[in-house]
Amino acid sequence: MPLPQGFVAHTGRAGLRDVGDDLAIVVATGPCTGAGVFTQSLFAGPSIEVSRKHLTAGDARGVVVIAKNANVATGSAGLSDAYEVAALAACAAGLDPAQMLIASTGVIGRRYPMDLLRRYLGQLQPEAFEAGAGQVARAMMTTDTRPKTAERTVGGARVVGVAKGVGMIEPNMATMLAFVFTDAAVAPAVLDDLWRRAVDSTFNCLSVDTDTSTSDTAVVLASGVAGPVDPAALAVALREVCLDLTLQLARDGEGATKLLTVTVHQARDDDQARRVAKAIVNSPLVKTAVHGADPNWGRVAMAIGKNSDDTDIDPARVVIRFGELETYPSLPDEDGLDALREVMRADHVDIDVVLGTGSAESTVYGCDLSDGYIRINADYTT
Amino acid sequence: MPLPQGFVAHTGRAGLRDVGDDLAIVVATGPCTGAGVFTQSLFAGPSIEVSRKHLTAGDARGVVVIAKNANVATGSAGLSDAYEVAALAACAAGLDPAQMLIASTGVIGRRYPMDLLRRYLGQLQPEAFEAGAGQVARAMMTTDTRPKTAERTVGGARVVGVAKGVGMIEPNMATMLAFVFTDAAVAPAVLDDLWRRAVDSTFNCLSVDTDTSTSDTAVVLASGVAGPVDPAALAVALREVCLDLTLQLARDGEGATKLLTVTVHQARDDDQARRVAKAIVNSPLVKTAVHGADPNWGRVAMAIGKNSDDTDIDPARVVIRFGELETYPSLPDEDGLDALREVMRADHVDIDVVLGTGSAESTVYGCDLSDGYIRINADYTT
Repeated sequence: MPLPQGFVAHTGRAGLRDVGDDLAIVVATGPCTGAGVFTQSLFAGPSIEVSRKHLTAGDARGVVVIAKNANVATGSAGLSDAYEVAALAACAAGLDPAQMLIASTGVIGRRYPMDLLRRYLGQLQPEAFEAGAGQVARAMMTTDTRPKTAERTVGGARVVGVAKGVGMIEPNMATMLAFVFTDAAVAPAVLDDLWRRAVDSTFNCLSVDTDTSTSDTAVVLASGVAGPVDPAALAVALREVCLDLTLQLARDGEGATKLLTVTVHQARDDDQARRVAKAIVNSPLVKTAVHGADPNWGRVAMAIGKNSDDTDIDPARVVIRFGELETYPSLPDEDGLDALREVMRADHVDIDVVLGTGSAESTVYGCDLSDGYIRINADYTT
Repeated sequence: MPLPQGFVAHTGRAGLRDVGDDLAIVVATGPCTGAGVFTQSLFAGPSIEVSRKHLTAGDARGVVVIAKNANVATGSAGLSDAYEVAALAACAAGLDPAQMLIASTGVIGRRYPMDLLRRYLGQLQPEAFEAGAGQVARAMMTTDTRPKTAERTVGGARVVGVAKGVGMIEPNMATMLAFVFTDAAVAPAVLDDLWRRAVDSTFNCLSVDTDTSTSDTAVVLASGVAGPVDPAALAVALREVCLDLTLQLARDGEGATKLLTVTVHQARDDDQARRVAKAIVNSPLVKTAVHGADPNWGRVAMAIGKNSDDTDIDPARVVIRFGELETYPSLPDEDGLDALREVMRADHVDIDVVLGTGSAESTVYGCDLSDGYIRINADYTT
């Protein structure tokens, strides 16, 4: 998948991992417009600090992504490292240091192997920028099992996105690493607004394991080479690319075997709809039941009940459905439980809940919880 | 372990499970004093409604516990069932129906097998009340692997507690099933105060899996047969019994192989201390690292960072220790990681965090997350 007009990319292996690319750089070949959102973690890493500063300065033209090491909780030395890596990547790409964003995920609490990064970036030539979106997505992976890309066209322009992240995922006003590139021409304020709205109903509705990353970054860059497009159409394309990547992230959640979507209807407001939906999609007991296709629908009632501050929710008005199959208040009999078991055997389980407290609605995205998650995370660094 | 003076108990099998006792009744042989706290779940079951009402009436003298079926999300029929089971148990024990509390855990969303319960309780004779605390604890078990009892003496009186619960455990101002009996004489208002304080720093600091039960019940009954005791000494005994049971519940968490305790020091207030400690003890990534003895201490930094509303927490003032071993801000070298691995191999892992925002402190209790949890919960009802 080629990048949109006006962007080039490089991927390579600096040696942070044993095999495969572990470094990616995407840059605009001319001025471009950017917008981004970042993790709200109190332990946000130096990459977040550098990228936020460079993006705010208004002339960001590229991003360097380091895999396998998050460079988080590494103190002032880690911050210096982040500035240096961004500068080295900028230099190799012919940009000013302040035009380069940086993103990094992997183990927390260890400094970059700076000797390896200095050696690799120091010899990098401009003609080495010839990678496509698929290679960029692959070079960003940590425990991902497959690269994640998505694409839409809008007028004469294209929107291309790449993302990574399958664990430590409960984005909080931000997301895991996701980068979207477009050659549409769009004013900075419009792009910022469209981007925040696209992220809010996609990446921000994703949770694999309730653990918010210290490195979440979602950035869009627009080169403008393809000229202006209808903003409403661009909004749709951006949201569709983000949703496509969100579904890929959920399906590839660590150890996941199924996509789990939860929609809450007739909620008091968007916050309540999302809070209740998140409580369901994050419940380890709901997630394990989905994994085992165990028709234990009562755990959805339990997860709704956890929101004890939402005192306007009355069990007498609640409806719970798995796909088309109602399980509450009309309790399933033995045949109903058999039918529910079948519904839960699919590789996409969709739970719908009616709260009856208003008219707001929210859909969130997650996955089942399997022994694979345990195996991946019980010995991640060793 | 005998019950304190003034209490008798019966356990038996009504047929809710294939083997072993599934029903327990404990009653005072005369007037007694009681206090209790219950789940805050919006989907709290009929047992909660009945017990809260009978306890508030001020003359509660006993409790009947049903295992394997929570009788939750069963509508008005489920509420009638709960009243009927409490009445049948009261009749068998020679009490008025309104003197009997009821508690029930197990699968959600299915009605009791009332024919079995009517048959069993209808033939129960007063002379069948001869069980000890260990038998009561065993009859309450669902996925528990062992019965949980604890005992302290205070003056001339004894305090004996029983508890069950190893999954769907994140008590919210309440707890899983826990019953404490004492023959100390204590005024109702004093007992209520002592009980709430004991529960708050023990059961309410326990989490196995972040899922709050619809059935949480913690009740203390005092027969007074042993006469008055020093209230301060009784407070200590009650708290010690509750803490003992809490540690047993944590160690027996579904699939658990280790006890995990987290203490947060120098927090702004108790709420902040507990919120941050809970974020750590509940993080699936911290729990899996503890399970695998993976020295991935950075996940503790991640879990602290999730509390993004606690903007007074500054990573520059945070200290993270595993046992005596500091891992942040002085990062461990390779030898330090080896030492950390050893600390994490123990069957009790203790994490200490200094926040530097004040002087409050809180300790919470949990366990590791293993593939055993997945196996238990992926096919619970089938």
